Amino acid sequence: MRAEIGEQPAALRATLEALLPRAAEAAALARGTRQVMFIARGTSDNAAVYGSYLAQVCAGRLATLASPSVATCYRSRVDLSGVLAVALSQSGRTEEIVETLAWAAGCGARTLAITNDAASPLAGAAEVAFVTEAGTERAVPATKTFTTQLAALAVAGLGLAAAGGRDGRLDAGELRAVPDEAERLLSAPMDLAPIVGELAGVQGVVVSGRGFAYAAALESALKLKEACYLHAMGLSFADLLHGPIAVVDSGTPAIIVAADRGPVLDSAVALAGRVRDAGARAYGIGGGAALARACRYALPGPELPEWLAPIGLVIGGQLLTEALARRLGIDPDSPRGLSKVTQTT
Amino acid sequence: MRAEIGEQPAALRATLEALLPRAAEAAALARGTRQVMFIARGTSDNAAVYGSYLAQVCAGRLATLASPSVATCYRSRVDLSGVLAVALSQSGRTEEIVETLAWAAGCGARTLAITNDAASPLAGAAEVAFVTEAGTERAVPATKTFTTQLAALAVAGLGLAAAGGRDGRLDAGELRAVPDEAERLLSAPMDLAPIVGELAGVQGVVVSGRGFAYAAALESALKLKEACYLHAMGLSFADLLHGPIAVVDSGTPAIIVAADRGPVLDSAVALAGRVRDAGARAYGIGGGAALARACRYALPGPELPEWLAPIGLVIGGQLLTEALARRLGIDPDSPRGLSKVTQTT
Repeated sequence: MRAEIGEQPAALRATLEALLPRAAEAAALARGTRQVMFIARGTSDNAAVYGSYLAQVCAGRLATLASPSVATCYRSRVDLSGVLAVALSQSGRTEEIVETLAWAAGCGARTLAITNDAASPLAGAAEVAFVTEAGTERAVPATKTFTTQLAALAVAGLGLAAAGGRDGRLDAGELRAVPDEAERLLSAPMDLAPIVGELAGVQGVVVSGRGFAYAAALESALKLKEACYLHAMGLSFADLLHGPIAVVDSGTPAIIVAADRGPVLDSAVALAGRVRDAGARAYGIGGGAALARACRYALPGPELPEWLAPIGLVIGGQLLTEALARRLGIDPDSPRGLSKVTQTT
Repeated sequence: MRAEIGEQPAALRATLEALLPRAAEAAALARGTRQVMFIARGTSDNAAVYGSYLAQVCAGRLATLASPSVATCYRSRVDLSGVLAVALSQSGRTEEIVETLAWAAGCGARTLAITNDAASPLAGAAEVAFVTEAGTERAVPATKTFTTQLAALAVAGLGLAAAGGRDGRLDAGELRAVPDEAERLLSAPMDLAPIVGELAGVQGVVVSGRGFAYAAALESALKLKEACYLHAMGLSFADLLHGPIAVVDSGTPAIIVAADRGPVLDSAVALAGRVRDAGARAYGIGGGAALARACRYALPGPELPEWLAPIGLVIGGQLLTEALARRLGIDPDSPRGLSKVTQTT
């Protein structure tokens, strides 16, 4: 896992090199549609959350996360005319995802696949396939296949924005700078020891984000569940305050994930205060100086615009997970109960 | 909380009496639209998940859970023509929800509010308001305001199905039988002691459901977080297998929630086996004899068709939460850190 975390700058570079010239293909698919439906599970579902903010905030299109059981269990026929279905699966071999994409096409949707395997059934099932260039991933917890999915979604976002006449909203040059920034982040010293030391003594943690960064919070919570067996609850700031804040206490800290700019940063800082008021410890990932001041410890985030920040923020969550797993005596490459391709129906 | 759990049959009866004659109003709103977007937070968001299955499985309409930050933080203009926006808030006073509904109307959506207060800003902001008749709810954890929300959504579902020419899919007579079945469930002996005794010794639990019952699983997980401070992770069966199954062990049991019929029951029973194989305890809520056999202990579910089962299934989760809170020495009426109306922006 540690080695694959380090391979992300190269994987991002290769993925953007392959996909940036193809943004127009996503735009062409999107032109006949008005909205987007994402089809995904697990890590890929967290990438889909990122895609949903891109579509809605940057391209003015309603975005939906599909419930695959509607297709695979209930076999319901849903009107999907005007919908661009985007299916995400790193292996491209999760049958539920392939089947749901085929169902969407049968219901009238246009189809785009994002996968790390050009030869997979998912790539073959879609009108257009964006293949990420992460290379083979051996550790069970996805790292480089996740961040390259985000990069592929960002390229699709450029296409969606262009199709809606909103080209100016997203800057391809900013996206091109992401691999270098990931490299800088990975080579800069990051002092994980204080947070790892404290998290080693807890059983549960809340990981919270909002807006674009919400996807990085969900993915970090999933990593902590998978590789550290921590009761990690991923929640948006607002959902956390509607009930689950009750679980936060001296034995259940919160990790707050935020970009260092944008309209949700203030509420990230305010949330850190609420957590402290509940007698709990707040840690930050990103959020700049303002969030770092409000937290007990904070890991630095990337210097990227808000719409691209999740790609860097999740690297902090990966490094934290990997270090905590080793501290807990768990081999993060092969957590119990998991295999690399999950089959669900 | 215990008293209000017991008031649910009467609250459901009053709500259905008020709203069943108004299903045609939902149908009229739906006729100019093709899909549904739910706007909600917390408990109401779990009700929205139920609504999303009703819309998709029973009425063939794509359903989306809105991300309020798109409206309130990013102030993005999204094309919502052809969308019926359904906002849910028990108090009708959560500003974020009222603001997001107004935003949706401004983006071209038709609007329906479901609230327990006819005089609330939310009721005033929508074209049609379905007001639940739960009466005043004093305990902070919502119980009767939640199940009456589900009943209101079921009425809206009748309207949606009728608008799409799918009247035959849903039977209003089945819905009318729900209050009596809730009463039967509450008066039948339910032996909570063995599960409560074992849950009193754990810090975390996974609560899992799929399809219609997924909403009851999410709501039960939220109740256990709110009133028992348990690290309760609500997950669909499929999402659980994509990673979080790693957290299930001898100290982290799973509660599996299922209707006692329908196409997802087999996977509920199979999941109980996976949980046992991981060395963990599986408890059931509903799922009939098949799930009870596969679990260490199971609470009986309602004798209702699958589309209405969540209304009865969540009662099991409420009773379990209330009993566990008292066992842990927590006053379930006033959990720490929470107030009755949550304001988020």
